[in-house]
Amino acid sequence: MKLTDPDRLFPVESATRKLARDLYESVADLPIISPHGHCDPSWFAKNERFPDPAQLFVVPDHYVFRMLVSQGVSMADLGVPSADGRAVEDDPRKIWRRFAENYHLLRGTPSSMWLDHSFEHVFDLGERLSADTADAHYDHIDAKLAEDAFRPRALFDRFGIELLATTESALDDLKWHKMINDSDWNGRVVTTYRPDNVVDPEFEGFAENVAQFGALTGEDTSTWEGYLQAHRVRRAFFKTFGATASDHGHPTARTEDMPQADAAALFAKALAGTCTPGEADAFRGQMLTEMARMSLDDGLVLQIHPGSFRNHSASVFAGFGRDKGFDIPSQTDYVHALKPLLDAVGMEPSLTVIVFTLDETSYSRELAPLAGAYPALRLGPPWWFFDSNEGIKRFREATTETCGFYNTVGFNDDTRAFCSIPARHDVARRSDCAYLANLVATGRLGLADAHEVAHDLTYRLAKQAYRL
Amino acid sequence: MKLTDPDRLFPVESATRKLARDLYESVADLPIISPHGHCDPSWFAKNERFPDPAQLFVVPDHYVFRMLVSQGVSMADLGVPSADGRAVEDDPRKIWRRFAENYHLLRGTPSSMWLDHSFEHVFDLGERLSADTADAHYDHIDAKLAEDAFRPRALFDRFGIELLATTESALDDLKWHKMINDSDWNGRVVTTYRPDNVVDPEFEGFAENVAQFGALTGEDTSTWEGYLQAHRVRRAFFKTFGATASDHGHPTARTEDMPQADAAALFAKALAGTCTPGEADAFRGQMLTEMARMSLDDGLVLQIHPGSFRNHSASVFAGFGRDKGFDIPSQTDYVHALKPLLDAVGMEPSLTVIVFTLDETSYSRELAPLAGAYPALRLGPPWWFFDSNEGIKRFREATTETCGFYNTVGFNDDTRAFCSIPARHDVARRSDCAYLANLVATGRLGLADAHEVAHDLTYRLAKQAYRL
Amino acid sequence: MKLTDPDRLFPVESATRKLARDLYESVADLPIISPHGHCDPSWFAKNERFPDPAQLFVVPDHYVFRMLVSQGVSMADLGVPSADGRAVEDDPRKIWRRFAENYHLLRGTPSSMWLDHSFEHVFDLGERLSADTADAHYDHIDAKLAEDAFRPRALFDRFGIELLATTESALDDLKWHKMINDSDWNGRVVTTYRPDNVVDPEFEGFAENVAQFGALTGEDTSTWEGYLQAHRVRRAFFKTFGATASDHGHPTARTEDMPQADAAALFAKALAGTCTPGEADAFRGQMLTEMARMSLDDGLVLQIHPGSFRNHSASVFAGFGRDKGFDIPSQTDYVHALKPLLDAVGMEPSLTVIVFTLDETSYSRELAPLAGAYPALRLGPPWWFFDSNEGIKRFREATTETCGFYNTVGFNDDTRAFCSIPARHDVARRSDCAYLANLVATGRLGLADAHEVAHDLTYRLAKQAYRL
Repeated sequence: MKLTDPDRLFPVESATRKLARDLYESVADLPIISPHGHCDPSWFAKNERFPDPAQLFVVPDHYVFRMLVSQGVSMADLGVPSADGRAVEDDPRKIWRRFAENYHLLRGTPSSMWLDHSFEHVFDLGERLSADTADAHYDHIDAKLAEDAFRPRALFDRFGIELLATTESALDDLKWHKMINDSDWNGRVVTTYRPDNVVDPEFEGFAENVAQFGALTGEDTSTWEGYLQAHRVRRAFFKTFGATASDHGHPTARTEDMPQADAAALFAKALAGTCTPGEADAFRGQMLTEMARMSLDDGLVLQIHPGSFRNHSASVFAGFGRDKGFDIPSQTDYVHALKPLLDAVGMEPSLTVIVFTLDETSYSRELAPLAGAYPALRLGPPWWFFDSNEGIKRFREATTETCGFYNTVGFNDDTRAFCSIPARHDVARRSDCAYLANLVATGRLGLADAHEVAHDLTYRLAKQAYRL
Repeated sequence: MKLTDPDRLFPVESATRKLARDLYESVADLPIISPHGHCDPSWFAKNERFPDPAQLFVVPDHYVFRMLVSQGVSMADLGVPSADGRAVEDDPRKIWRRFAENYHLLRGTPSSMWLDHSFEHVFDLGERLSADTADAHYDHIDAKLAEDAFRPRALFDRFGIELLATTESALDDLKWHKMINDSDWNGRVVTTYRPDNVVDPEFEGFAENVAQFGALTGEDTSTWEGYLQAHRVRRAFFKTFGATASDHGHPTARTEDMPQADAAALFAKALAGTCTPGEADAFRGQMLTEMARMSLDDGLVLQIHPGSFRNHSASVFAGFGRDKGFDIPSQTDYVHALKPLLDAVGMEPSLTVIVFTLDETSYSRELAPLAGAYPALRLGPPWWFFDSNEGIKRFREATTETCGFYNTVGFNDDTRAFCSIPARHDVARRSDCAYLANLVATGRLGLADAHEVAHDLTYRLAKQAYRL
Repeated sequence: MKLTDPDRLFPVESATRKLARDLYESVADLPIISPHGHCDPSWFAKNERFPDPAQLFVVPDHYVFRMLVSQGVSMADLGVPSADGRAVEDDPRKIWRRFAENYHLLRGTPSSMWLDHSFEHVFDLGERLSADTADAHYDHIDAKLAEDAFRPRALFDRFGIELLATTESALDDLKWHKMINDSDWNGRVVTTYRPDNVVDPEFEGFAENVAQFGALTGEDTSTWEGYLQAHRVRRAFFKTFGATASDHGHPTARTEDMPQADAAALFAKALAGTCTPGEADAFRGQMLTEMARMSLDDGLVLQIHPGSFRNHSASVFAGFGRDKGFDIPSQTDYVHALKPLLDAVGMEPSLTVIVFTLDETSYSRELAPLAGAYPALRLGPPWWFFDSNEGIKRFREATTETCGFYNTVGFNDDTRAFCSIPARHDVARRSDCAYLANLVATGRLGLADAHEVAHDLTYRLAKQAYRL
């Protein structure tokens, strides 16, 4: 028995399936470009073995444990580290068993596809995970993890990753990236400039962060001009570790382009901790436009990830902290929100701004029309809950007719689950090829063109958009 | 000629169709669980014959008559009872003929599927309804209705209904349920606690209703504490008639969890009739959280049905009253609205809150992410305008990848059209099996798993979620 | 090699494809009814040759040039006339080459389908446009344009257009329509009453426009009563040139039904230029209801086209003016916005109000429920970015189950790209037949009914809704 179907995600009608399979086979073995994600660079710096199956697949993956929590399994029983000192399960085998006996909860989800793909293609397992197979799977995976071939660098090479971008705070010293660069390993791991903690007045410790930012850069970050200069300096530092992009996770897509004097005054309020919520939002919005202007100078690609209501459950946040599966999308406006930035820099062909969304209603109504007009704007791939077969299908169906393929930027896996990287790229390649096959079968795209587009979506557009 | 295709709603590709048919055949004959609906309990209490075809299929069914009204047929000509004393058609055959000659207006709608299913499978008719067949159909159905086999209890049994929940106001004396319980009939008809008229300060006669509520329960409903206690008493009374759930139809999904003193003050304003619209909305929102807390004690499942702009046409409301097909969905927020309730009780695995929507944009953006995280939250099936083949398809496609199958609760028919119950459950079973077959055919779900899920969606999840 | 697939847009499964093909063949050759669009009536009045391929296909078509602009080609290089005096490319062959070498950007878009259809079926070209074929295509098309058979009237006849409606401002003298009427040509080209420039207080030169409106009609448009009377007079004038409809492009769908004295006071403020933005919106909303009341008297169909954020890019608007591909849809409410108008006149079966949307979320949530209830309301076909195969599919899937087919009004091409008219109607006919074939194949519609509906959607409903 196999866990994965060789024709998975292809159209069901046989001729169209054949088209999809042919398209897929032409791109299946292309290298993986992973220009946006959250892998831990220390994995590749230290190249230590992954501790155990539970730590590899369950404990850090909020896609997985949230589903068990939603059905009444406690986070503590799944070993999720607590923020309030409460005891949590520390026996990885017990965590694994709880995961295994609830594996049916993931039926029909992308997580189950990614996990089955990893089990079969990374660990060579052929039986479905369940209460019955839990221990055998655990032992098998644990034994594999002890092998050199399953250390991070070996897996990176085996996965065919040509480039992997991680994401680091503006205050990060990038020591792991330095260690990778200094090593004899040739894997290409680059960083991404993520300044939320020095850009968002509502971030914990904002003023202290900005002071530290000044110390790191040698700029006087108590002034608006010095603060902007510190960003320029830090962006240059990140570029020396391969960064080609910045990334911004904001509650909304709001941008501003206020006079510099007003921005300076708002920055002073932010440092003083006296911003209203509206002013904090305006400051974040102003900083997106400032970052875009810096990008015109230094060439970094600007990524905007808006629209997540973070830490929705007060008790989960108090007990377990951030990134625990309780970030909920909310309605997101782009047409009004992006106008200040677009009026400032949107017509610049040398700038690339990549916008993501968690609000699918914006694809056809706002994002595709905007990306199909402004030279600076590109659409990021389906994000988070929409990084899935249906999510990708809806994205292509809702955007292609209005902004084509060439205002999109290939795939991002956006993951901290390392073993899922080949699985996620595989789902994206299959889903895109299924979409293209359907266009060919219905006379909307020529076959040769479809092959070229498949290659573009898999490989070329990501390299081009992220300037890799 | 047959009115219904044996393979209706199955995928068109032959292998996938075969999969769907196999799945469907394994659940087609399972008993019907109808845990939420609006059948009249007096039908089963009195077990009188249904009066005539027009009264059975046209006059009370706003799904049907609204479509004719939308094309210029007057409500009065369709025999819809007036609220302002105007004369309406009282000849059922004339009503039926008007219905029949406009039957083509329902092409492509779920109503036409349900009606054709009823005509063929309940009444054994084989010709499409039209002006030409109107009289023959009328005579045939009318003759059947005179038979004992077509009385409410006999149809209930014939339809294979294991349980049917009706919905009664908190002020209802449940006499029909008592009569059913006291009868020698074994059909299981239970009530549901629907307290809108004593919870919504904007309901006609709110203060009088609350006073009557006090009289019924022996509690002093002029105080906040007494009012809450009256709910506890009345919920217990409803439980003695089989209630396992409460139901709440609010304009928005707003919840509140204000300090009890503030809630008491707001209740006083509500009784005094001095609430602003915003305060009335806040009071309704507070009551959802209060009901959830009572559910923790008494085990009733909490159902929230928000987002309908009721009685949109002022003239229709003045002329014909409520529930006349002029209730229009409106945009509904859940991510902010439900947070107070979820912060209060959302992490309680012993609580079940079932949320419905008329705003499909919330499926993937808000509802599935929330239900895929909070243990207390479940998604109700597609509601009202979305209780349809395409509605169910979009629901599964938009929610499954994020919250799986097990945060959904099976099917609700939600109907007052008794003969449509088997038809609606059949559409749901076929639509779910079509979805599952497609997952199997595209390698997203194993066949054995699909069979288990089909059974769960048809039968087990409804019983489990509603604690039946 | 052919540019278009004879089975394009049909379902891929062979039996369903056969059904779709049969349905399509029964309507493929029906005359084109084009009841809403933006062709230039002077084409048909003067019947001069189209100047060159670039002026025919690129320069005036913002669907096309926006996509090239979005990828960094400048508008000036595409010959788009400037509003600020800057020089723009004036060599049509250079414009055409730029278009040709970027033709791949349109892959997967409706524009590429329409263009390929025009190239093959109007100009008898068989090779895909590209840098390699640019000059040959240019020469070929240019030579054809010199032939009498490619003059506007000849193409109109060849396209099988039974009726074409253009759209003129309330201040237009309709001289081209007069010239057409006075000619010996029998083509039926009618006008549409579009009063935005005398209805929108925020339109450039509103007060002067209203004064001119008074001069044209002989009414005293400085008073509210005279202003309304001027509309009545002008509508009657437009009717003498075949108008059966008015059209209104507003930022929102807001309607109002204020007391006449309030409306008069607001009109005075509008003339004085002292309206706030909210008051201007209210005035526009009031005028929709006034227009609807006039329609009750004179029978003109009322079309509402709301929800476009016009001229989103300040710099493009400054440099190139209106209608340059930078109009972006925004979220649009209908359920609250239309209530004043619907309360005033929505139950009138003799009135037809056709509502369009650029916000697809409103189809199932608001528009189909409203159109499935109010006798005066009909849904316009998918508009602008949604006039496409996927757009039509989503429209039918989202609306049919709730408002059926008969609350929709057939197809509008809404175009100023003359050669795209047969292509657009062909896409609509194929897409509708594909939808109907799928209903038949899944047992949701009888085959004979499907044939009748196909004819209705292609021909009868447009004539009926627009009273042609």
